[in-house]
Amino acid sequence: MSPRNFQVTLARRPVGWVKETDFTVIESDIPRIGSGEVLVRNHWLSLDPYMRGRMDDGPSYAAPAELGAIMVGGTVGEVVESNNEKFSIGDQVVGYLGWQQFAASTGVGLTKIDTRVIPASAYLGAVGMPGVTAWLGMTQIAEPKPGETVVVSAASGAVGSIVGQIAKFKGCRAVGVAGGAEKCRYVVEELGFDACVDYKLEDFDEALEAATPKGIDVYFENVGGKILESATRRLNPFARIPLCGLISQYNELQPHGLNNLHRLLVNRVRLQGFVVSDRLDLWPAALKALGGWVAAGKLKYRESIVDGIECAPRAFIGMLRGENFGKQLVRLVQ
Amino acid sequence: MSPRNFQVTLARRPVGWVKETDFTVIESDIPRIGSGEVLVRNHWLSLDPYMRGRMDDGPSYAAPAELGAIMVGGTVGEVVESNNEKFSIGDQVVGYLGWQQFAASTGVGLTKIDTRVIPASAYLGAVGMPGVTAWLGMTQIAEPKPGETVVVSAASGAVGSIVGQIAKFKGCRAVGVAGGAEKCRYVVEELGFDACVDYKLEDFDEALEAATPKGIDVYFENVGGKILESATRRLNPFARIPLCGLISQYNELQPHGLNNLHRLLVNRVRLQGFVVSDRLDLWPAALKALGGWVAAGKLKYRESIVDGIECAPRAFIGMLRGENFGKQLVRLVQ
Repeated sequence: MSPRNFQVTLARRPVGWVKETDFTVIESDIPRIGSGEVLVRNHWLSLDPYMRGRMDDGPSYAAPAELGAIMVGGTVGEVVESNNEKFSIGDQVVGYLGWQQFAASTGVGLTKIDTRVIPASAYLGAVGMPGVTAWLGMTQIAEPKPGETVVVSAASGAVGSIVGQIAKFKGCRAVGVAGGAEKCRYVVEELGFDACVDYKLEDFDEALEAATPKGIDVYFENVGGKILESATRRLNPFARIPLCGLISQYNELQPHGLNNLHRLLVNRVRLQGFVVSDRLDLWPAALKALGGWVAAGKLKYRESIVDGIECAPRAFIGMLRGENFGKQLVRLVQ
Repeated sequence: MSPRNFQVTLARRPVGWVKETDFTVIESDIPRIGSGEVLVRNHWLSLDPYMRGRMDDGPSYAAPAELGAIMVGGTVGEVVESNNEKFSIGDQVVGYLGWQQFAASTGVGLTKIDTRVIPASAYLGAVGMPGVTAWLGMTQIAEPKPGETVVVSAASGAVGSIVGQIAKFKGCRAVGVAGGAEKCRYVVEELGFDACVDYKLEDFDEALEAATPKGIDVYFENVGGKILESATRRLNPFARIPLCGLISQYNELQPHGLNNLHRLLVNRVRLQGFVVSDRLDLWPAALKALGGWVAAGKLKYRESIVDGIECAPRAFIGMLRGENFGKQLVRLVQ
C-alpha cells in the first residue's frame, strides 16, 4: 500500500483556551507535483506561539487561517521528487509547508540548508524564525549596552533562550523569567544567564528585585500579564521593551493589561511591538550571526520533541501552557 | 508700606485628588539680592500638569517638591534690581522662579526674551516648555508622514493645540480629542484641525472611528485612561504613541491601564514616554521654529488667565479637571 499524507486542519476557531477538538487530523493522497514543482517530505514541524493568533479571525499582521485549511507552520524536510531545476532529490529544505507530512511546492519560500554542522531541526529554532526574532528584538529595538540588565520572559523557550545569550555576548547582565526550578536551573547553568526567577513563586516580585539590583534596562517581553507588571516596576530611565509576544494572554477572554503606564512615562520607556517577518531584509545578517554561534558551540538551545503529526495539537496546547522545555518540535520521520 | 512677597508652598502631599488645602499662601519680605544676583518681579506664572507629579514623593524624573517649599513653576518676569552684568533693569526674562511674586536669582536658568513680536506670556506656552514638548514629541518620536492621521488628546490645551497644528504643517490629517462642544469647535475652527471628538460623548468610540476613517498613525497622548483605550483600537500598523502625559490618571488611586496591549503587538506599535527636559540640546531649534510660526501668525494658541498668586491653587486644580481652555496662566501684575 502506498504511503498516505496525514495533515492537521483548523476545525473551529477557539473561544478562550484552544482544545484538541479545534483541530482535525485528516488523511489524503500524497500530492502529485506539476511542472516546476517539488515534493517535500517534512521531517520536522515547528510549533510556535504565533499560530494561536492565526486561529482567530480578528485583524492581525497576517491573514487568519481558513476553517478547514491546513494549519500554517515552519517545516524542515527533504525533497523527494523534483520538477524544479533548483532542487534535487535529497536536498534538505526549510520552509512554511504547514502541519502535514508531505507537501508540493513551487520552490518559492523554500531554502536549502546545510545540515553537516548545524542540525536540521535548529533551522526551526536557534538558526530559524525564533532565533531571528531574538536577534531582531535585541539589535533593532533593545540595543543593550555593556553593563545593562536585560530581563527576558519565557527564558528557556525558543526565543527567550537566545535573547539572554545574546545579552551575555553583548556584555550585559542577563536575567531570565521561567516557570519552575528546573527551567530556571537550566537557564543559569546551561545557557549561562546570570540569574533566573521562577514566576510561579509567591514572592516573585521580591525575587525579581533581588535578581535585578541595578534595575532593568531591557525587558524583552514574550509573556505579558503579571510578569510584565512586575518587570515594569523595576524599569530604569530610558528602558526598552521589545514586545515580542504575550503568550499568557492569548487564550484569555479578559486580558491582563498594563496598569502602571505612568512608570513608562516618567522613565521615558520605549515599548515597541515587532514581528519577525517585517524585516526580511535583515534575515541574512541574523542567520549568519546565529549560524556562526551555533556552529561554534557558543549558542545553546534545547528542544522538546513529540513524534507524529497526530500529536501536534496536544503538543501545541501544551506549549501554550508552558509545558514544553525549549523549542517545541514535532518529528515526522523516525 | 513697602510691597510684600506672596508665595505658594506645598503644605501636604495629596492623596488622590489635589485640594486647595494642600497648598499654603505665605507672605514674606521681598528678597535682598547678593553679589551677582538679580531680583525678578514675576508677571506670569505657568500652571502645568507635570506639577502634580512633583507633589508626590515617589520616584520620578525630577526630585519631588519638599514639604513647605515654594511650588516649582515656569515664570516670565521683569528684572527690577540687578547685581549681574548680564541683566539690566527692565529686562524681560523667562525662567523657573516658582509660585511667587518676587524671586532672587543668580541668573542661571534665566533667559532674556524679546516681547516686541511675541507676547511675554507665549514664552510659557507656544514658544515655551509646552510648545517644545509638542515639537519634540512630533519630530523625535511621532515623525508623521504626509497623509497620515495624527490624533492628539487634550487638543485645546497648551501642548495638544500645538501638536495638531504641527501635524497640519506636515501635511497630515489632524484629529483632536477634547472635552465639550465649545473646545471641539475651537480646535477645528480656530486651530484648523480636520476634526475634533468630544470625549464626553456617550458614543465617543463611534465618533472617533468616524473622524479617523483611515485609522490612526500617530496618537499623541496627554490624557490616558479610556481615551487611550479607544485610540488604541484604531491604530494602524507601525503607529507611534508619544507618551507625553496621563492627566486623567494623576489623581486616581487605581489608575486605568492599557488593556489591549495585544493591539500594540500585532500592529508593531511604538509607545514611547518622553520628558521635555531630556533634550535641552534641541530646545534652540524647537524655539526657533515655534517662535517663527507664532511671529508669522501661523501658530495659534489660547490662554486661560486667572489674576493673583492666591488663585494659583484653585486654577491648578481646575486645570487638572480640564476646566481651563488653552494654556493656564496666572497673571501676577495687572
